[in-house]
Amino acid sequence: MKKLTAIIAALTIGAAAWGQQALGPGTGLVSPEINPDHSVTFRLFAPKAVKVQVTGDFMQGNAEMTEGKDGVWTFTTKPLEGELYSYSFIVDGMRTMDPSNIYRNRDVATWTNIFTLSAEQGDKGWYYEVHDVPHGTVSHVWYDSPTLEANRRLTVYTPAGYEGGKAKYPVLYLLHGSGGDEDAWSDLGRTVQIMDNLIAEGKAKPMIVVMPNGVWFNKAAPGAAVNMFQPTFANSRSQSTIEVENSFPDIMNFIEKNYRVAKGYSNTAVAGLSMGGRQSCMLSLHYPGKFGYVGLFSGVAVHEGNEAAFDAVFAAKPRLYWIGCGKDDGIMVNSRKLKAFCDERGYPATLYESEGGHIWRNWRVYLTIFAQQLFR
Amino acid sequence: MKKLTAIIAALTIGAAAWGQQALGPGTGLVSPEINPDHSVTFRLFAPKAVKVQVTGDFMQGNAEMTEGKDGVWTFTTKPLEGELYSYSFIVDGMRTMDPSNIYRNRDVATWTNIFTLSAEQGDKGWYYEVHDVPHGTVSHVWYDSPTLEANRRLTVYTPAGYEGGKAKYPVLYLLHGSGGDEDAWSDLGRTVQIMDNLIAEGKAKPMIVVMPNGVWFNKAAPGAAVNMFQPTFANSRSQSTIEVENSFPDIMNFIEKNYRVAKGYSNTAVAGLSMGGRQSCMLSLHYPGKFGYVGLFSGVAVHEGNEAAFDAVFAAKPRLYWIGCGKDDGIMVNSRKLKAFCDERGYPATLYESEGGHIWRNWRVYLTIFAQQLFR
Repeated sequence: MKKLTAIIAALTIGAAAWGQQALGPGTGLVSPEINPDHSVTFRLFAPKAVKVQVTGDFMQGNAEMTEGKDGVWTFTTKPLEGELYSYSFIVDGMRTMDPSNIYRNRDVATWTNIFTLSAEQGDKGWYYEVHDVPHGTVSHVWYDSPTLEANRRLTVYTPAGYEGGKAKYPVLYLLHGSGGDEDAWSDLGRTVQIMDNLIAEGKAKPMIVVMPNGVWFNKAAPGAAVNMFQPTFANSRSQSTIEVENSFPDIMNFIEKNYRVAKGYSNTAVAGLSMGGRQSCMLSLHYPGKFGYVGLFSGVAVHEGNEAAFDAVFAAKPRLYWIGCGKDDGIMVNSRKLKAFCDERGYPATLYESEGGHIWRNWRVYLTIFAQQLFR
Repeated sequence: MKKLTAIIAALTIGAAAWGQQALGPGTGLVSPEINPDHSVTFRLFAPKAVKVQVTGDFMQGNAEMTEGKDGVWTFTTKPLEGELYSYSFIVDGMRTMDPSNIYRNRDVATWTNIFTLSAEQGDKGWYYEVHDVPHGTVSHVWYDSPTLEANRRLTVYTPAGYEGGKAKYPVLYLLHGSGGDEDAWSDLGRTVQIMDNLIAEGKAKPMIVVMPNGVWFNKAAPGAAVNMFQPTFANSRSQSTIEVENSFPDIMNFIEKNYRVAKGYSNTAVAGLSMGGRQSCMLSLHYPGKFGYVGLFSGVAVHEGNEAAFDAVFAAKPRLYWIGCGKDDGIMVNSRKLKAFCDERGYPATLYESEGGHIWRNWRVYLTIFAQQLFR
């Protein structure tokens, strides 16, 4: 821990340097600090504050932080398991970021600080961290969609070895949920780290992962789109799936033309979360011979009225029809219904029931499980 | 403006949704709001605060915000010219982000909110915005550096039309400054928007822009590197340039092997800001026949002791040797010295003197000017 004088010097330099544009040497505090027992200590310099709390997805409710004589408020959690965690501070009732931690994620319109914790190799947190393994490439690319009459943005992961190589790779199309965009899976979903680590361990086949923008009337994520729009569930949700179904070949044609793709049923997967799960389900129904692997993460289509389409899906003998859902998720009712329908007809669908609700923590786990079963 | 009830409802929903992970519908406020006269209004809901200020690079010092009866503090600037601006709020002495604005930039370890303002097409702000023009691809790629015995990350911009085309493109190697990384030029420097817009207007030739990590002992930016390190000037600065000079062919070999590159002196440019300007200068001296275009933005090498190397640079007849610096920048002394040295020897170097100091606002302008003169 730095002394108070160092902290004040740092803050003063930061303020003085503002005329030279926001350059500061940081706060001089370490926060969060992961302790040897995997508890985590948070620190915030707030000498004028009356009440400071921390709120995060590693506990229920808010925790009171304690002020030291140096104006630094602290709180230490109990030991935590490996995971990616989000948190914020609440200073006198106002939510604020931890200025000592540059790592942040945006979910719809809300930013929070994040950190990863890995208790041991192979736990959840370990897969979300960057390790000294070969790394894939992440590209933000624009493609033309004649169907939607739009130039649209998508994110492409190509595995380590793609550059300079000649091999063709199978493709996973991975769709985000309401409020999300083509950056959601790479940012919130840790897709890049999960795929790098699984492939390096030999637990997943090297594959291309294509992450389109699933809101058919949006061309790109906030920041990449014309106008600096503030995302909401309303402006980043497609109630209808038919536009996504009809325009999906535009995406596949672009990818198959511009990347070294191993084509065909047994080399093509589609998966998505929430809205993207429903879209993936509908895509499987719309193109029954197209996707040999289907992943529905906390999102499904109802089977009523779609019985014949489901018959066609399973007549094409998918290698994997995988449903994942949390036990506290409202989507579980329909997930179980779909599983029961498949069981009745003797269709080999898998239902993976996890703890928890409709949250990214589950979707990262579902991707980790699902990716290992692809293209075998 | 939403009513107070809507704000409170929004905040309540946000808090309740936290158990489902930080998903909130936003604050219900519009901030910043760009008014028809190009003044800008900031808003913050802080009913418990005693004093709220806004600080930003559109004015000197901090401005006091005024509290309304609804607990919303506001401040409106005077009309502003087109530019990318940064700002933060200060609530009872503590700097905080604007929760109504998802747009943020990180400079070393400091996050600030940002917004762009364009008073008319073609002003500075206009070039930094996303417009409805063809967009290039941005890729984050890893390459092997045998010289540094490391796998390292770099950012590559390929212009619209690269995918699906067969043309070869000239290359600009663009280097960041101390405290930066391979994401600095694309994030803080708005390189993607500047290049997309200049190319769409026909003012710059379509080109590939390669943005390496210029800190030779760092493999990647925070977040992409092993360990979630907190960047400082100390851990993200190369005092020595020789490692960068010696290992630069590793980068060029990777790019020329994996992209459709028009090779050779008249198709190869190098430029950088601050530390990256000095590196670019040293690269031009180290490889006098390699870079036909050289840009030194607020960073140069001293000519004393390098006279013979400069003679070799200009013997190779560079198409452009361009120095840019702000009049308030401490680097101006050496920039003018280098220009005078070139003048004495009859070497056609250009010195562009701008207002202001050692700031990103200048570097974006220098890139905009420099890029238009490349590969003609």
